[in-house]
Amino acid sequence: MPEIRLNPITGDWVIIATERAKRPEDFCHTKERKELPPWSASCPFCLGNEDKTPLETFRLTGDDGKWTVRAVPNRFSALSSDGDVIKQKADFKQYITGVGLHEVIIESPIHNTTTALLPLGEVQQILNAYRDRILSFYEDPRIQHVIIFKNHGEGAGTSLEHPHSQIVGTPVIPGQVIRRLDEAIRHYYYEDFGDCLYCSYMASELKDGIRILRENNSFVAFVPYAAITPFQVWIFPRRHSASFGMIKDTELIDLAAILKEILLRIYIGMDNPDFNYMLRSLSPREADAKFFHWYMTVVPRVSQIAGFELGTGMSINTALPEESAKFLREVKIPAF
Amino acid sequence: MPEIRLNPITGDWVIIATERAKRPEDFCHTKERKELPPWSASCPFCLGNEDKTPLETFRLTGDDGKWTVRAVPNRFSALSSDGDVIKQKADFKQYITGVGLHEVIIESPIHNTTTALLPLGEVQQILNAYRDRILSFYEDPRIQHVIIFKNHGEGAGTSLEHPHSQIVGTPVIPGQVIRRLDEAIRHYYYEDFGDCLYCSYMASELKDGIRILRENNSFVAFVPYAAITPFQVWIFPRRHSASFGMIKDTELIDLAAILKEILLRIYIGMDNPDFNYMLRSLSPREADAKFFHWYMTVVPRVSQIAGFELGTGMSINTALPEESAKFLREVKIPAF
Repeated sequence: MPEIRLNPITGDWVIIATERAKRPEDFCHTKERKELPPWSASCPFCLGNEDKTPLETFRLTGDDGKWTVRAVPNRFSALSSDGDVIKQKADFKQYITGVGLHEVIIESPIHNTTTALLPLGEVQQILNAYRDRILSFYEDPRIQHVIIFKNHGEGAGTSLEHPHSQIVGTPVIPGQVIRRLDEAIRHYYYEDFGDCLYCSYMASELKDGIRILRENNSFVAFVPYAAITPFQVWIFPRRHSASFGMIKDTELIDLAAILKEILLRIYIGMDNPDFNYMLRSLSPREADAKFFHWYMTVVPRVSQIAGFELGTGMSINTALPEESAKFLREVKIPAF
Repeated sequence: MPEIRLNPITGDWVIIATERAKRPEDFCHTKERKELPPWSASCPFCLGNEDKTPLETFRLTGDDGKWTVRAVPNRFSALSSDGDVIKQKADFKQYITGVGLHEVIIESPIHNTTTALLPLGEVQQILNAYRDRILSFYEDPRIQHVIIFKNHGEGAGTSLEHPHSQIVGTPVIPGQVIRRLDEAIRHYYYEDFGDCLYCSYMASELKDGIRILRENNSFVAFVPYAAITPFQVWIFPRRHSASFGMIKDTELIDLAAILKEILLRIYIGMDNPDFNYMLRSLSPREADAKFFHWYMTVVPRVSQIAGFELGTGMSINTALPEESAKFLREVKIPAF
């Protein structure tokens, strides 16, 4: 009998279709990945091609003086960095000018690598770049919300092979974020006075244990009870904070370790599948908000979004979250 | 300057990224479609292979006595048709048993055709089947919501070539539907007393005219002001009704005509792209609800859902809806 599980964070029901569940191995990536060179003359993100990108906004360098992580404005920005936020409303036609910030974080000078395979120190540097850029984006008074995300592979929406992630600052708070805030605020102020929904949910996952993948001093990684796709992973900070922007240095190190390990388990266990990850956070100005809690989500793109999902917003997860967790826990990974 | 437009029906902001807008022709399908035979021995939906499907629940026949449309239970149903709705809640783990109904509507005995190319009478029969099945589904007291949808092409989530659509009845109302009801109820009871959001929005689109594709006695088809993808089309019934289940015979004929024409414009203009369509409706018991209005949406899958979309719920539409409408209006289609 399938189960329809409620995700307490999003308020969405998810169909866990155990009857047509495949074995975890069946989700592993079978597409042939193209063999890539470590450097490509035509790649704007490769070492030596820095003049092919717009003027960089951030850089970290290694001991040899060469850059290890760069941030640059997105050449194909969805939003315009110039201009004022102007709101117009006439009848049912309401819009605001599409101003905002959109940068690419180039995660490594090496063309043919991926986060899972980078040394831990370099993963820390990527997260360092995220922190710098999110703080900088929120200094722009036009920006209401910032999302950091990574598209890995064509099925996840990228055609650029060079490892990179993106950060977008919008002059509106997205509807999906408003709805998560609604759930969180209702829980905090109405249903369970003074209780952070995220902290309590994390405690519940820890108590169950069965879906936990890894814990360290600062973070807990788990397959959520109502995961929307096979092998979806959430990484929650133990310390209550509504904004990634206020993450401490020691926490950044712990986040790098757990993120790298999760991505490596997915890379090895599922043979380098397409995936997205997203970092959900409020502004650093709102870091002390008691009802919201920043977190990361990793979504392997092993199933297609079709008419049912578009028409209901519900997902059909054909893997039992407990089995996805067990499979990922049992992946043999090299020590690092 | 891009615009961020608010969709009054969904409450979602959509980025209309005109700066990186492609020309309408650039969205046309370029993938080579496999040449298909009109009949396939191995296809469970082809004429003569009726014993390869579960027992049919509905059938319409042509003058020659052969079936033209069939409905059969989905062999890979996401939900179980047997069993009771049982709710369980413990801590943050809330679920209900995954009971529900899931059928496939086989739209034609011919393997290598598509709705756009069917005679008008056969499109009417498909819609007839939808009406019969939605009424039947809602007779099951376990069913709270029914969604009808079509996945056309691999990029839209199907690997079965034979023309078909699906109907799923769930024992919960999906969160996305609840949120649309929220918007509609707020408009009706709070912001604009006694005014159906959908009726008024349709009147506004008709007044503007620029995004209208086609009108007939019963329906209006248009590219919505805040379309989430290039060439998204909404088909609204003129007569206020919250349920497709209560559609009249004359309206069914008009819907067949406008749906076929829209699908044909997309088929010819965009060279047979992957697409989904969804029919959004409440139960026939709620047909008289003043605040909701059933409608159809057609979504060509010409862009990928990536990290930005997953992390915000916002869409980036790289075509101006007014230009998408102009392009579709100007497609030359044969008379029918």
